[in-house]
Amino acid sequence: MTHGSFGSAAGVTGFERRIARRLLEKRGDPRLRIVLWNGEEIRSSDQPPVGRIVFRDRGVVPYLARHPDLGLGDAYASGRLEIEGDLTAVLKVFLAAPDGRGAMKHLRDAWRMWARRSHSLSRAKSNIHSHYDLGNDFYALWLDEQMAYTCAYFPTPSSSLEEAQVAKMEHVSRKVWLRPGDRVVEAGCGWGALALHMARHHGVYVTAYNISKEQIEYARQRARREGLSERVEFREDDYRNIAGRYDAFVSVGMLEHVGDENYPELGRVIDRCLLPHGRGLIHSIGRNVRQPMDPWIERHIFPGSYSPKLEEMVGILSPNELTVIDVENLRMHYAKTLEHWLERFEKNAAAIEARFGSVFTRTFRLYLAGSIASFFVGNLQLWQVVFQRARSNDLPWNRSRLYVPGS
Amino acid sequence: MTHGSFGSAAGVTGFERRIARRLLEKRGDPRLRIVLWNGEEIRSSDQPPVGRIVFRDRGVVPYLARHPDLGLGDAYASGRLEIEGDLTAVLKVFLAAPDGRGAMKHLRDAWRMWARRSHSLSRAKSNIHSHYDLGNDFYALWLDEQMAYTCAYFPTPSSSLEEAQVAKMEHVSRKVWLRPGDRVVEAGCGWGALALHMARHHGVYVTAYNISKEQIEYARQRARREGLSERVEFREDDYRNIAGRYDAFVSVGMLEHVGDENYPELGRVIDRCLLPHGRGLIHSIGRNVRQPMDPWIERHIFPGSYSPKLEEMVGILSPNELTVIDVENLRMHYAKTLEHWLERFEKNAAAIEARFGSVFTRTFRLYLAGSIASFFVGNLQLWQVVFQRARSNDLPWNRSRLYVPGS
Repeated sequence: MTHGSFGSAAGVTGFERRIARRLLEKRGDPRLRIVLWNGEEIRSSDQPPVGRIVFRDRGVVPYLARHPDLGLGDAYASGRLEIEGDLTAVLKVFLAAPDGRGAMKHLRDAWRMWARRSHSLSRAKSNIHSHYDLGNDFYALWLDEQMAYTCAYFPTPSSSLEEAQVAKMEHVSRKVWLRPGDRVVEAGCGWGALALHMARHHGVYVTAYNISKEQIEYARQRARREGLSERVEFREDDYRNIAGRYDAFVSVGMLEHVGDENYPELGRVIDRCLLPHGRGLIHSIGRNVRQPMDPWIERHIFPGSYSPKLEEMVGILSPNELTVIDVENLRMHYAKTLEHWLERFEKNAAAIEARFGSVFTRTFRLYLAGSIASFFVGNLQLWQVVFQRARSNDLPWNRSRLYVPGS
Repeated sequence: MTHGSFGSAAGVTGFERRIARRLLEKRGDPRLRIVLWNGEEIRSSDQPPVGRIVFRDRGVVPYLARHPDLGLGDAYASGRLEIEGDLTAVLKVFLAAPDGRGAMKHLRDAWRMWARRSHSLSRAKSNIHSHYDLGNDFYALWLDEQMAYTCAYFPTPSSSLEEAQVAKMEHVSRKVWLRPGDRVVEAGCGWGALALHMARHHGVYVTAYNISKEQIEYARQRARREGLSERVEFREDDYRNIAGRYDAFVSVGMLEHVGDENYPELGRVIDRCLLPHGRGLIHSIGRNVRQPMDPWIERHIFPGSYSPKLEEMVGILSPNELTVIDVENLRMHYAKTLEHWLERFEKNAAAIEARFGSVFTRTFRLYLAGSIASFFVGNLQLWQVVFQRARSNDLPWNRSRLYVPGS
């Protein structure tokens, strides 16, 4: 591949045309079109297109062929490939298409792998774009005011992101049946919003773990500011070092970064720290199918991240005599959450581009839009799994208390 | 083993005493005592016992040793072993004890295996006690008025069994989001109560499969009597022969009899019969751990029955691009359901014993009491798993409609 081909001129060979048409046909959807560098449009039907994928130079074709794992995203990020029309809408069509074969299969897997690695905060900072210091300020530009970087729970589809993040924290709190005085451990606490919510609204004591120094510092400051330092302890430490025993275990958006080779250890950690009557909740992005991590993405985008099957999430628990009592799939809530993030991101796109540059901005945009699409078309799931000790009968009679306060 | 030892007299050797004490110690719970045939009591503490296990003759000891897989249940059924105190309470202590080793481990596994095989209706008729014709009349003696032989859903712990079975049918109907005019297929319909409920209260058309001739005939008669024959078709056929395509698939209490070797085929059946927007629900007894079927029980009690892990239930769906959207564990509702069944059974115990004899009555009592205990102590689970096609977004925004009608 020669980058010298960038911006190369007009002529399209019959071979190039065939390759482009083949890429389109492999998508199996007539609502996409490809526009070549000379303006020529490749289409498989006269149906009005959802959008058009524009190859700005002829080098894109061999580039995609040579880099099936990330070529498409990379070409988009660099601007050699443009998407005309609503980016998210195009990605929904692209990602919902039936599995292709060969190179296109790889391409699509790569996109899906990429899109699913949306929560690796600390790693994102060092890997998505390692020469930028993203920092808290960056996330504050497009997350909610409490900086929750996980799927929200929208009371209605038109609720605000702020309302939905609070509703999520409340939903989680009710699912683990918090009672005043309970001791709660949180594995992977982000900027601390959930830990502080539980302490403030449910009168519990929280020990919250996170290996991100910057997030922990932010969370501690907030706890001091809000007078909750006595009730919430933020520990800069790995979940594997969780000490003590607790009435409840919660982990929201950490499992994606644990790595499936560590699931048995996570199960033992939960087993070790949960009191006999204890309840727990694991909230994670998931998938219906197990797919191996693409090596390129593993190395360059979100190293060590993995979205488990529900079977794998349950498999963390069952060997340790922990019983699943409730599972809820919130994937449409994650699509909605990401729509809010992307909307806020776009409002600040000029500032972000000025600070981080075009390639980073386009990369991040594609990641957010691709994630919306992945949840929307059902390639990604968001499961909240509630569990308790197998021998414990300290559980609510039914789930109505999640929906009818006081029931 | 010589049955001639039955009723044998007094003397207890030091060896017999040691064996009995060892059995007790293996339970690891001081709340049980063993009474030997000469009245001698073996105890491991002075704590007031929950109950006493009485060995009526010295032959029980070698009998249990030689028949670790079913000796205890068999000895109880024959009356050579008696349980003093509340049977269910004793079984709760017995079944909640930590795993023993060796023979006691086998014994306990056998009990657990036995207790978990509670739903194999047609097989139960030919296998639990093959020389009795149990028939619909027998079940009518202790099931609810609609003859639902599956876990009910109690609005409150004090609701009646009749209320709770209707509430279960309504809960299932709401979980699969029935809408008027929907076509529903039911795999394993028992005496037809759920199919008729869905047709009557949700305006759907149901095709219900069952291989039990007697149940199907009963269900058809009821449909005719209630004027629902146009809306509900009862087919005497195997779930593997399900034909047509449907808006919803439901299966309540059949999976236990499918056999895990057939799970892949069940998944393909669901895949074949479910429309693109379709939803489904599988309701089954389950376990946290996979345990091999005991050969003796497999042969004599509930052949072909198996209680899956939740991972295995999910594994029926995920290979077929079916996404889990909701899982609920109702094990305490099953314990409560079984309490009602046992209570009704005991009210009719004299009539049942007169017709079926003492061994059968004791066998059935032990099965019901053991099942209560198994669900209560958490050895058995009852999972309702709701799913839909991976690509479908035809799903409710949240689960509040299960709890807040009209939401």
